[in-house]
Amino acid sequence: MNENPKPGKNGFKFPESIKTRITDVKPNHLSTRGYNQEDLITNLSFAEMVFLLLRERLPDEREAKIFNHILVSFCDHGVTPPSTQSARLIASSGANINNAVAGGLLSFGKNHAGAIEKAMELFQTTIKSLILEETDEEDVNKKIARAAIDIVERYESESMRIPGYGHRYHSKDPRAVRLLDLAILESGIGPHTKLALVIESILSERKGIGLNVDGVNAGLLSDLGFDSSLGLGIFMIGRLPGLVAHAYEEMEEEEKFRRFCDLENIVYEGFKNRNIDEK
Amino acid sequence: MNENPKPGKNGFKFPESIKTRITDVKPNHLSTRGYNQEDLITNLSFAEMVFLLLRERLPDEREAKIFNHILVSFCDHGVTPPSTQSARLIASSGANINNAVAGGLLSFGKNHAGAIEKAMELFQTTIKSLILEETDEEDVNKKIARAAIDIVERYESESMRIPGYGHRYHSKDPRAVRLLDLAILESGIGPHTKLALVIESILSERKGIGLNVDGVNAGLLSDLGFDSSLGLGIFMIGRLPGLVAHAYEEMEEEEKFRRFCDLENIVYEGFKNRNIDEK
Amino acid sequence: MNENPKPGKNGFKFPESIKTRITDVKPNHLSTRGYNQEDLITNLSFAEMVFLLLRERLPDEREAKIFNHILVSFCDHGVTPPSTQSARLIASSGANINNAVAGGLLSFGKNHAGAIEKAMELFQTTIKSLILEETDEEDVNKKIARAAIDIVERYESESMRIPGYGHRYHSKDPRAVRLLDLAILESGIGPHTKLALVIESILSERKGIGLNVDGVNAGLLSDLGFDSSLGLGIFMIGRLPGLVAHAYEEMEEEEKFRRFCDLENIVYEGFKNRNIDEK
Amino acid sequence: MNENPKPGKNGFKFPESIKTRITDVKPNHLSTRGYNQEDLITNLSFAEMVFLLLRERLPDEREAKIFNHILVSFCDHGVTPPSTQSARLIASSGANINNAVAGGLLSFGKNHAGAIEKAMELFQTTIKSLILEETDEEDVNKKIARAAIDIVERYESESMRIPGYGHRYHSKDPRAVRLLDLAILESGIGPHTKLALVIESILSERKGIGLNVDGVNAGLLSDLGFDSSLGLGIFMIGRLPGLVAHAYEEMEEEEKFRRFCDLENIVYEGFKNRNIDEK
Repeated sequence: MNENPKPGKNGFKFPESIKTRITDVKPNHLSTRGYNQEDLITNLSFAEMVFLLLRERLPDEREAKIFNHILVSFCDHGVTPPSTQSARLIASSGANINNAVAGGLLSFGKNHAGAIEKAMELFQTTIKSLILEETDEEDVNKKIARAAIDIVERYESESMRIPGYGHRYHSKDPRAVRLLDLAILESGIGPHTKLALVIESILSERKGIGLNVDGVNAGLLSDLGFDSSLGLGIFMIGRLPGLVAHAYEEMEEEEKFRRFCDLENIVYEGFKNRNIDEK
Repeated sequence: MNENPKPGKNGFKFPESIKTRITDVKPNHLSTRGYNQEDLITNLSFAEMVFLLLRERLPDEREAKIFNHILVSFCDHGVTPPSTQSARLIASSGANINNAVAGGLLSFGKNHAGAIEKAMELFQTTIKSLILEETDEEDVNKKIARAAIDIVERYESESMRIPGYGHRYHSKDPRAVRLLDLAILESGIGPHTKLALVIESILSERKGIGLNVDGVNAGLLSDLGFDSSLGLGIFMIGRLPGLVAHAYEEMEEEEKFRRFCDLENIVYEGFKNRNIDEK
Repeated sequence: MNENPKPGKNGFKFPESIKTRITDVKPNHLSTRGYNQEDLITNLSFAEMVFLLLRERLPDEREAKIFNHILVSFCDHGVTPPSTQSARLIASSGANINNAVAGGLLSFGKNHAGAIEKAMELFQTTIKSLILEETDEEDVNKKIARAAIDIVERYESESMRIPGYGHRYHSKDPRAVRLLDLAILESGIGPHTKLALVIESILSERKGIGLNVDGVNAGLLSDLGFDSSLGLGIFMIGRLPGLVAHAYEEMEEEEKFRRFCDLENIVYEGFKNRNIDEK
Repeated sequence: MNENPKPGKNGFKFPESIKTRITDVKPNHLSTRGYNQEDLITNLSFAEMVFLLLRERLPDEREAKIFNHILVSFCDHGVTPPSTQSARLIASSGANINNAVAGGLLSFGKNHAGAIEKAMELFQTTIKSLILEETDEEDVNKKIARAAIDIVERYESESMRIPGYGHRYHSKDPRAVRLLDLAILESGIGPHTKLALVIESILSERKGIGLNVDGVNAGLLSDLGFDSSLGLGIFMIGRLPGLVAHAYEEMEEEEKFRRFCDLENIVYEGFKNRNIDEK
């Protein structure tokens, strides 16, 4: 059981032993990241448990509060997101709820839910390059301000949108506004969120757009130390309750297939009246 | 926009308007189940938000505590569950994290994660048939005890396992034990959980098996008023953080395809050396 | 490499060797069901290759023709099937084509694409019970006729629809009509298809409905010897080209998210204006 | 029904009418790409039907032969491909066959099955840039030869592998060898396949590697006029029969979960014995 995987001839390793650092399972004993699951069940909030699973340690009180706000802010945005509509459509065909929800997750990609990881990457790469340790706060703020201007100008010159700003429906995303207020109150504003805010002040002046929930959470999660490649995973954990609720709402509707459009709504614009002999 | 969907000629309805009771979205305004999302973000724990989404109302303090314990208890059980192994395998092929996690969800069915809804149905159908309102507590306990005996004998005569009892690895599922202790402390033991406990005392004596986490949570969720058809949805919400953590652990491994077995491990046992002419 | 899997303590077997009867892979050598893939590529039609993969032997000329007709008949039915709409919706969100097509497959269940396996089961169970070997043809026809009447009356008494008959759009499914004509010409009508036809003549008289493509193919596939549990698999193989074409058509559309409905089309009917203090 | 979709305020269009060029559906009438489905069922092979669906016209005899060989060559490569292993794993958990096969499709991405589209893009971009119309054949061959040298040197200088060459198991992919022989016999070698062959002769000399099935088919499909963005779709159509066969083989196995590894095979390497108080 403790053998190292022996190498296969063609570069694959046979999984004689799968190594993991997440949960240790023995008969009548379960511990996750080193803590007995019984103690976790007794003492942790669900948000703290998620933090522990992904960061390999417990959050302190401050971190737990902010991370909880982030997860709640992701929970649902109504029917219109592509993932929610896909989940509802599949649920409406009579498929099981896990199929509906899985189908919803499949619509995430570059165009949908991609902003959070891109924003996290942008903020993290930038802050990392500024080498802010052992810099007094005034200099930190100056460096961040300069970096913000650079970013805005770079994206403008390439006619690209900065991920995390603007929203289809909201000129002022209510979730973003509240998250920032809470972060200020709870000492959650670190260098990444500062950078996000300075960019916002510039964009707000130039284009009238502000941070959306993805942008704020990208800043907050970066300040909490999460790697950008966990961004979509955290978003999915927050959004799954909404997908389950929407799939369930569809399933409870009496009529099957009610979300599916009818022949009357299809317009055929292709070839007509061709004969096989015309091959 | 407020038209009722007009019926299509063939029984389908065209989705001119999708009705929902979950989240109301207006420009700069979001409310879920009637509450401003800003207030939800400020005041609710993630577990309370999940409760609100699925039950259409806020939990009281007692309900919130128990529901939180349930979600934490579902979070992870290591590498071996089929859903976790499927998610790790797909992650290992280099696919995106949402594909890996969605693939994990696809392995749920009758044989995996099916027990929670079956147990909820069993408990709910039984308690409903006992018509316990306006019955004093002693009679309630007697009725439940009789029903428990009936269930054990019925399943035994049909050589079927009662869902929610026993476990592949644990003679005493540590999560189940702790959840019950907490439920007693926090007044979470209602008629469904009582029924589950009486069945356990009988099975424990006859077969040496006890409640597992699915069985305990089936009782607790039923006492919290959740319909059985939400059982798998709640389990998925609790388990997704574990799936994300496992998929991420695979993605962080340097070698691609490390989970895939090699030619050396395949034994071909089918036909050999056939010729097309033998058609 | 040739070891039998050793049993694990808890009933699982570790996959030290996976046994298969499908394709033998050695360096520079590939054979499927015993035939060199080079010879298969040279000599087989795609439909014959599918037959070989699923039935473990090559079809004769008659079988190959009929099986080919069946696969072509499954290829596409326009936009409206739930699987096609789901695939188009996911493609429209910008997800990769494999995600879109996989999402389409997830909508198959009891309510969509379930008829073909149910019809195959019904026909196969019935014919099996008639013990038709060594019965002269006249008696065979009589037994089948009686069985058909039994089936129609049984389903009627239980107010259930016989799978494989009727269609949302077509009073006479053009695919079913043509498939039967070809089957007659090509000697493809065996006892299962005969049974299907006799049931049709009764239903046609009583209810004015006829065989649809699922019902005809259920008869033909049963007469070709396919087990009912392969019905959905064969349907998916036939339908995938259509799903790919539809997903591709969506992807080629310039506008992203064009299939997604807008806020204007959502009607919120749930709670409003609730305050957290009302907990 | 013929209205253009009216624009929503926020950039989404409500699907009042979905336009399609694939299949026209009217009561008792189905036509695909302009041809009656009855005639298609009667006259087309499954491969010809796939060609029609994706290319919007029927193939001529030459094209039909080559396209058929391509689809057969994709059908199965045994247990080891990531998609096949994922499908088998999910099937082994007891999930439905459509879930197993869908799960297999989810593992396609950059690292698995990505080569065919990349190779098609490389060949098509190159040939397009050579402007070969109205060039005599000798000049065409010279231009292609120069382009081949450029490609090999460019990829070598960037330490990148040219997609479509080499194979984990086969020094000479038997499918590629046979496909090329057939293409020569059947006049299927156009400029893209020529380019692929010249690159192969250089790589063969320098590195001892040759075209694999993805590379050959990338050339052949490009010469048949397929856009590179259809490469994965065509591969999935060809490979689905194999995935169905493998999922079915798993389902027929008596023991559930036989593919899943056991606790004995998991090595836990993470934290141990931590106490909640150490928060």
